[in-house]
Amino acid sequence: MISFSSYASSGGTRFGEALASVPSIQREYQDRAVARLNSLTKPPGSLGRLEEIARRLVGIREETWPKCQHKAIFTLASDHGVTQEGVSAYPKIVTQQMVLNFLTRGAAINVLCRHAGIDVIVVDIGVDGEFSGVDGLLERKVARGTRNMAREAAMSTAELHAALAVGLDLAESAGNDGRTLIGTGEMGIGNTTSASAITAALTGCPAAAVTGRGTGVDDSALQHKIKVVEMALAANRPRPSDPLDILRKVGGLEIAGMTGLIVGAAGRRIPIVIDGFISTAAAAIACTAEPKVKEFIFAGHRSVEPGHRVLLEFIGQRPLLDLEMRLGEGTGAALAMNLIEAATKILNEMATFSSAGVAGAVG
Amino acid sequence: MISFSSYASSGGTRFGEALASVPSIQREYQDRAVARLNSLTKPPGSLGRLEEIARRLVGIREETWPKCQHKAIFTLASDHGVTQEGVSAYPKIVTQQMVLNFLTRGAAINVLCRHAGIDVIVVDIGVDGEFSGVDGLLERKVARGTRNMAREAAMSTAELHAALAVGLDLAESAGNDGRTLIGTGEMGIGNTTSASAITAALTGCPAAAVTGRGTGVDDSALQHKIKVVEMALAANRPRPSDPLDILRKVGGLEIAGMTGLIVGAAGRRIPIVIDGFISTAAAAIACTAEPKVKEFIFAGHRSVEPGHRVLLEFIGQRPLLDLEMRLGEGTGAALAMNLIEAATKILNEMATFSSAGVAGAVG
Repeated sequence: MISFSSYASSGGTRFGEALASVPSIQREYQDRAVARLNSLTKPPGSLGRLEEIARRLVGIREETWPKCQHKAIFTLASDHGVTQEGVSAYPKIVTQQMVLNFLTRGAAINVLCRHAGIDVIVVDIGVDGEFSGVDGLLERKVARGTRNMAREAAMSTAELHAALAVGLDLAESAGNDGRTLIGTGEMGIGNTTSASAITAALTGCPAAAVTGRGTGVDDSALQHKIKVVEMALAANRPRPSDPLDILRKVGGLEIAGMTGLIVGAAGRRIPIVIDGFISTAAAAIACTAEPKVKEFIFAGHRSVEPGHRVLLEFIGQRPLLDLEMRLGEGTGAALAMNLIEAATKILNEMATFSSAGVAGAVG
Repeated sequence: MISFSSYASSGGTRFGEALASVPSIQREYQDRAVARLNSLTKPPGSLGRLEEIARRLVGIREETWPKCQHKAIFTLASDHGVTQEGVSAYPKIVTQQMVLNFLTRGAAINVLCRHAGIDVIVVDIGVDGEFSGVDGLLERKVARGTRNMAREAAMSTAELHAALAVGLDLAESAGNDGRTLIGTGEMGIGNTTSASAITAALTGCPAAAVTGRGTGVDDSALQHKIKVVEMALAANRPRPSDPLDILRKVGGLEIAGMTGLIVGAAGRRIPIVIDGFISTAAAAIACTAEPKVKEFIFAGHRSVEPGHRVLLEFIGQRPLLDLEMRLGEGTGAALAMNLIEAATKILNEMATFSSAGVAGAVG
């Protein structure tokens, strides 16, 4: 674990403890999984990445027969002060409206999770609007959105640690609910701008290389968006070696929440499927703070956002799917969780060469 | 449709009629699908290839709300005389043993189909062994395997057309059973050698570029396998412009069966998901005989077999998954069918901007 001053100076001991409690993966369980996979009625390795997934899950869970129980995607919603700069194709009110759409189950994430038997847990961690008398929403609002990072730090230190704590709480509840596979998702107009700034700050890549069209801005708006990312970096000067400093200055409340969720899940040996660019920004912060977190992450898909490819390489993850998606919400994670569950069933349900009476390879 | 002499000279009118009955896809239904997709609560196009799938399905089915009903994978099993040349890591008896494994539901295809709610229909189209008193097997044996293509033609003209007819029968039964999404799969020790020979004959690529390790042969066995493919091409001299001549001389009974199935499915507007290298060899024969067939095919995944990439380009298909699999049976198709069903649900179940009260893009 690297040390970072913003954490040390903020007294945020809970997140620090969570980082310190992330376990190491032992070879022993993975070796056992490989032996089992090689005994199944198929040529060794012929199920490719399904076998890799199964092996990794056995290592994460330290269980011979891992299962995907009570699968859930946590979709965290928050607003971004940087929308004042006109960085999105959609008005900020859409964050709030989409939360209501999630709760009435009409959004893409609802459809894809229903398809795969995944619970959707919608969390208001920072929407700039009130939800009163709305069923099914987890109300954990830290603030009504971030400040405009193009002019000042997006969050105070207290807000940052409150948002991280929300994520840690979500991981704790996932553990208590017996969830053995969870995913991250988000909704927040303006949040690709934040993810681009995080990516530039963490990796040193120029803003132009890691900033994309988000929900679909045109060429001139893209040029403006790149300038806004550059302004945010110039105004805040986040320290490259200090992931929480980056997160506080140019992140978002939902990104901080996902960072806490990812670290908390790793600490509980709950495998976590990250979705697209914004989720991966949270994962990159978590993995920079504690590299052991990488072992607990599955990259669900590769988004068309140019910064996503850069971030996936940065955290050493190969995505499971590449379907040219760029929606967020957790949609790529939901599709990938289906593959992960398929991999567990391969391990748990296939016959062996000896049980099925099938001859092995010659010589 | 191109003409081909082996068909004309064989009197195989049923397959010719099936080719002639493949319909063209009209733009109208696809345009309607795009309009619907753009009204849903997501940025236009942001679900990437899921939207492409949904659009194509609407065009294939000519239905506004396509569904994936009574999904099935047809796994066709057959033996190959070329195994006499020692091309596989496994003994020939494994074909028969794996059929029994399919029927007792212990194979990878059973596990993945159960996971996705897909029926597995196991067809003996040419296994070199008897199945007596075995429940659940569709017995359509044309011959006890093919002849050794390294020395002579794999099939007689009568055998070829009998195998094509089995596939056409399967497509007919799929239509009668109300299936609206089907997939191809196969089992046949030695069949990657056959698929490599088909690929070389169809595309003109050298055998060395399109021959891989199959179930997992070592370096020296791979060099031998390449030589066997070259021997098969030299001994038979299949005509590059005559897909049925290629199929008869260097194909397999299960490959011919899948060719019939693919053409029959296209003629009934049933979308068909092809699996890996061997399934794609069948699809390439079908698409060469009648290019309109392409519109009805979804490529499930990209196998690690080097010839598969070549064949997918040859038929103009981009695979949905790339998980480094190389098992066959229909396993890649089964995983992809889950994505295709997800795409139909996006189209059918998502809220629109107006129904959900969500604001559209600015300006």
